Amino acid sequence: MSREFDENMSQLVSEITANYKQNPIFSSFDSSNLANKVEIIEILNELRQLIFPGFFEQKKLASETIGYYVGNLLMSIQEKLHRQIKCVLFYKNYINMEIEDSILEKKTDEICQSILKSLPKIQEYITTDVQATYDGDPAAVDMEEIIFSYPGIFAVCIYRIAHELYKLSVPYLPRIMTEYAHNETGIDINAGAEIGKYFFIDHGTGVVIGETCMIGDNVKIYQGVTLGALSTREGQNLHGVKRHPTIEDNVTIYSGASILGGETVIGKNSVIGGNAFITKSVPEDTRVSVQNLELKFKNSKAKEFDQEFISDWVI
Amino acid sequence: MSREFDENMSQLVSEITANYKQNPIFSSFDSSNLANKVEIIEILNELRQLIFPGFFEQKKLASETIGYYVGNLLMSIQEKLHRQIKCVLFYKNYINMEIEDSILEKKTDEICQSILKSLPKIQEYITTDVQATYDGDPAAVDMEEIIFSYPGIFAVCIYRIAHELYKLSVPYLPRIMTEYAHNETGIDINAGAEIGKYFFIDHGTGVVIGETCMIGDNVKIYQGVTLGALSTREGQNLHGVKRHPTIEDNVTIYSGASILGGETVIGKNSVIGGNAFITKSVPEDTRVSVQNLELKFKNSKAKEFDQEFISDWVI
Amino acid sequence: MSREFDENMSQLVSEITANYKQNPIFSSFDSSNLANKVEIIEILNELRQLIFPGFFEQKKLASETIGYYVGNLLMSIQEKLHRQIKCVLFYKNYINMEIEDSILEKKTDEICQSILKSLPKIQEYITTDVQATYDGDPAAVDMEEIIFSYPGIFAVCIYRIAHELYKLSVPYLPRIMTEYAHNETGIDINAGAEIGKYFFIDHGTGVVIGETCMIGDNVKIYQGVTLGALSTREGQNLHGVKRHPTIEDNVTIYSGASILGGETVIGKNSVIGGNAFITKSVPEDTRVSVQNLELKFKNSKAKEFDQEFISDWVI
Repeated sequence: MSREFDENMSQLVSEITANYKQNPIFSSFDSSNLANKVEIIEILNELRQLIFPGFFEQKKLASETIGYYVGNLLMSIQEKLHRQIKCVLFYKNYINMEIEDSILEKKTDEICQSILKSLPKIQEYITTDVQATYDGDPAAVDMEEIIFSYPGIFAVCIYRIAHELYKLSVPYLPRIMTEYAHNETGIDINAGAEIGKYFFIDHGTGVVIGETCMIGDNVKIYQGVTLGALSTREGQNLHGVKRHPTIEDNVTIYSGASILGGETVIGKNSVIGGNAFITKSVPEDTRVSVQNLELKFKNSKAKEFDQEFISDWVI
Repeated sequence: MSREFDENMSQLVSEITANYKQNPIFSSFDSSNLANKVEIIEILNELRQLIFPGFFEQKKLASETIGYYVGNLLMSIQEKLHRQIKCVLFYKNYINMEIEDSILEKKTDEICQSILKSLPKIQEYITTDVQATYDGDPAAVDMEEIIFSYPGIFAVCIYRIAHELYKLSVPYLPRIMTEYAHNETGIDINAGAEIGKYFFIDHGTGVVIGETCMIGDNVKIYQGVTLGALSTREGQNLHGVKRHPTIEDNVTIYSGASILGGETVIGKNSVIGGNAFITKSVPEDTRVSVQNLELKFKNSKAKEFDQEFISDWVI
Repeated sequence: MSREFDENMSQLVSEITANYKQNPIFSSFDSSNLANKVEIIEILNELRQLIFPGFFEQKKLASETIGYYVGNLLMSIQEKLHRQIKCVLFYKNYINMEIEDSILEKKTDEICQSILKSLPKIQEYITTDVQATYDGDPAAVDMEEIIFSYPGIFAVCIYRIAHELYKLSVPYLPRIMTEYAHNETGIDINAGAEIGKYFFIDHGTGVVIGETCMIGDNVKIYQGVTLGALSTREGQNLHGVKRHPTIEDNVTIYSGASILGGETVIGKNSVIGGNAFITKSVPEDTRVSVQNLELKFKNSKAKEFDQEFISDWVI
């Protein structure tokens, strides 16, 4: 390598490290690490193995010895979860404080135990989600197919786990988990949302469910649905404010619909048609459809013609 | 670990295994495994290497010895495919039956041979898809770029393979394959759809093509297009019924358009504008555009003003 | 294996290799390889480690020794980048020419040096993107969360790197890089687009930003936004023509909006409402919203009713 090259390199190193100093928030040194994404994904995979035993591994399981299998998995999950939770608690809450390790250890233990205790309930809820998916999708062959390959189940499963960590105010991990699901499926459910049983997301790409959404039981959602906020111009001033809608029981929301605003309530048993754009509450038992989306038809001679078309649809 | 911890653990194991017993469908033990997703992805990668030799590996290939390369790859694909097909056939069809292994073996052989035989045809079709992509996308530099990096080609390639397995009634594998493509690209093509030559999907995120779609030759589809069903309220009762549209030759469908219903036919040479929402048939040679999507303009003094705008567009 | 099987295999090998000969563009043998996607992803990962030191690795970094860390990373990036650039330059430009390796080597060196020199500027821009994301998203807890897990930052970071390669006319690599980001996030930014500082993409799934877009500073974009071309019927004839819009400073574009056409300019400080479909220029300081998207409400007795609804919204 030439002398010129060496000088260029030195120059570059100086400029880059100068940038670090100017914006210390963008570097994470002289400190612990934030979290280990690889281990977090391992935790999620092991939790899926626990919830759906025998589906995601190549070894066969026998019902007589299933207790050992479950115990083993739990120990492994517990160990990893403990390490990651301790890591983020320290990074977010204690990094500039002198605290004894035993205090941090105790706090981590408590959170870990709470999460493990919630697993049977999570498992029960996910079971209802699989059932709702089977009942709602004519293309589904059986529930094994849904468990094994449906992105909606994958995303909702991870959301349900992340939500428990969110409720316990664990920093970073809930978002890392739901963004992993978002990355894999195109379904973006904020861990803060509250979602009831029998939840079914079909296809799912482009679905966005905001942090302060409240969703009841038996709700069906299709691809491209946004449950979002109205203007976010106020940015960080809105942190913690309810800014996403409430969806009551038995509501169906077809593809591409947007429902916006923290005071917007979709009443129970309502059906929201595809591409509807809703910013105010809808009473219960209502079918909403986009009316009069006029289409223009031209034939090959560029002559317009009319056609009776779309007066009322709900997909 | 404390005694309390041990007791909590035991309690947890009991609750989780009790859940398994209550919902046996959600566990897969005392049985064979459903399938091995890792090996299925390997099969798909090897098939892509076969279809586009030299693109997806680091070793150089020489034209004189290409026969050995192809033979080698085929043997490897055949072995893995055989294993996975036998696995899903057993799991879905024979798990509770006493059948001789030789019968299952023979059935698996037949299916495997059919799929391998269809490879030259699949290859030919995918060649036309690459050509259509090059012809249709001004941003494409050459066909190598398309083969190497376009998500539309990736998804259509996997769909064409999965469709052969679907036609032979192989359980689980078609869906696992197309969901792998969905995961990688955001393009969700059900393996049951029938799609002609020269098929071009641009960008692709959010595209949904339903199980009973029929698509002709030379069709172009952009991001966010849904070829879907009307109401799926009847759920599993609709299994096997044609509920998705028919798209004839030379049709272009721009981004965000939805075309819904099993009796909806888009006639040949038609162009469907962006965001159109279509639930009835469109005759051939028709250009459909959304008309009169009124926009409201306010300036900084919140004063409204008019602007001649969008009377006819087709992107 | 039976004789029949052997014959089938031979037949298949012949058909597949015959396809190669008929369409030589679809095979890449007797030549160098196009590029190594695995190494390209490694380059991107190392660049992210350089831009956000300490976030994406498990070892701790110390501020006193950070210069060594940076130098080390730069050497590794430089080596890999050099290999990949040389590879694609040869494949695209020199494969059928007799050139001396020293000429290719020199050209590669120049490009490599240019890219490395641009790193501090890239770093500076990405710092502003993180700031804009924090300011704009009420759900964000802190900037570490954004750096560690937000897909918008991931995609914009890779776009900013790929854009440097695009400006230097490096073949293939820019597209491979942005498609990697597209694959991971559902955000499809063509490396040719020009994008100013403080760029914020929220959620992001389904965003498409075309090759000839020009975007100013302080622009916010939500999921499902298309900055696209009008008709692409002319295909390759449009290669190099400006066919995507210009977005001036301080513009916000809400989810699902489409802005199309190379002569379309959105003036500074304007706000484009969700689902708006825009094909002509909008003056500065304008708020555009979809007006009169009529919705039809039916109650459970299928009786229609009216509701004052959506006369003016901007999410």
